[in-house]
Amino acid sequence: RVAPPRNSYGVLCLAFSTISVMLSVVVEHIFLLVIVTLISVLQNAFFATKVEREGKEHNNKTAFERVSCANRNCMDSYPTFLAVMWCAGLCLNQAPAAFAGIIYLVARQKYFVGYMGQTSQSTPGYLFGKRVLAFLILMCIVGIFNYLLVRYFGSDYKDTMEMITNAASALLLIP
Amino acid sequence: RVAPPRNSYGVLCLAFSTISVMLSVVVEHIFLLVIVTLISVLQNAFFATKVEREGKEHNNKTAFERVSCANRNCMDSYPTFLAVMWCAGLCLNQAPAAFAGIIYLVARQKYFVGYMGQTSQSTPGYLFGKRVLAFLILMCIVGIFNYLLVRYFGSDYKDTMEMITNAASALLLIP
Amino acid sequence: RVAPPRNSYGVLCLAFSTISVMLSVVVEHIFLLVIVTLISVLQNAFFATKVEREGKEHNNKTAFERVSCANRNCMDSYPTFLAVMWCAGLCLNQAPAAFAGIIYLVARQKYFVGYMGQTSQSTPGYLFGKRVLAFLILMCIVGIFNYLLVRYFGSDYKDTMEMITNAASALLLIP
Repeated sequence: RVAPPRNSYGVLCLAFSTISVMLSVVVEHIFLLVIVTLISVLQNAFFATKVEREGKEHNNKTAFERVSCANRNCMDSYPTFLAVMWCAGLCLNQAPAAFAGIIYLVARQKYFVGYMGQTSQSTPGYLFGKRVLAFLILMCIVGIFNYLLVRYFGSDYKDTMEMITNAASALLLIP
Repeated sequence: RVAPPRNSYGVLCLAFSTISVMLSVVVEHIFLLVIVTLISVLQNAFFATKVEREGKEHNNKTAFERVSCANRNCMDSYPTFLAVMWCAGLCLNQAPAAFAGIIYLVARQKYFVGYMGQTSQSTPGYLFGKRVLAFLILMCIVGIFNYLLVRYFGSDYKDTMEMITNAASALLLIP
Repeated sequence: RVAPPRNSYGVLCLAFSTISVMLSVVVEHIFLLVIVTLISVLQNAFFATKVEREGKEHNNKTAFERVSCANRNCMDSYPTFLAVMWCAGLCLNQAPAAFAGIIYLVARQKYFVGYMGQTSQSTPGYLFGKRVLAFLILMCIVGIFNYLLVRYFGSDYKDTMEMITNAASALLLIP
């Protein structure tokens, strides 16, 4: 006869503990992604500062056009990158997604610097970091596929998948 | 005398099960949105490939300008679309949001192809997919309104709202 | 002998209540961010309408170029702003993040209107709202730092941090 009230109290208590656990769990599962996002924002600010400084000088028209074009190409693919990285991090695991994000940021930095320094006849192409984005898209697909497998067949391959993607993300380092 | 340890064990056990339930719940409530995001990313890659191919040919200046302009207009509204779709999916229900996202992607594909093929005096306008975005914004507003109603009045209209939006999303198919 | 089934029933019951609690918790912790995102989307639509109207008139070339440039500068920094605001809101607290977002939107509106109205020799710079973005980045860093402190040292400074950021966000009003 004492069990039901204790149980209902337990439910209340657990609902509250769930909420506080959940919040720290949310931060726990995204903090690497947030850090990479912050780094990318600082890189954006660096690019924008470069554009603004070139725009103020007014004496070098081609240099301004080149840095502005490099900045625009980087900014065009920025939302795509953010969306893919966050989806991959949420669906499967944040560590390889954040690692791939760092690789992408390094590739973007190289692209921007290469764009600024080169003459116009040998500018780098419009696209960059294709391999990293393809890897992140693959991670998303694997994560969703895994979720559907678990839902309809009840077997959880997530641990295996995470191990494989952790290993595969090291392959991105090979140039 | 046995109850407290079992209870505290149950709390621990539930905290862990909560975390694992929560993660699959997170994926469960966003996987349609993730799929639509992936499709939009692949479409972005298709657009960017078109721009890169036109840029490499160098013999057709107006064709490059047109495809570049179409790509830029699409990219300009891309973050807006992503933000609205995810907000609508998180606040109310993912199914109609993902459906509206698919409709938007089809409209964008039509816009891009139409922009490339047409002569300059009859280019399509700067905006496209206004109806879909308006529908998604409406979904966000309904979701937040519903949350505030539940919080301050305690009556849950979410089921009714979801049914209505599910029905309304079918109306988007009418051209 | 009755305890195990009741317990397992309680687990099931709590798993369901957790899911429903979690969903309303998710909306509870992001609804201010969603509202600010919606306002920013409406502002984007306002900018795009301005660009489209100027583009249709065709008689004022410099006005179109200026409004198009202002729109592009605003759109370039839009994903950065969204990413930083959501990260700050998720990591620490949504109220100061949403407040800083509103301040940013006001700064953007001023920038756009100022860009349209001014003559070309005194256009405002490429960047705007730097202080707000710096504040949001700081909030992200504080939130992650706080999470790492809690994880490795077990002391929770989150309440203190939230109070400080709530107070600091009022400082943004000083022009």
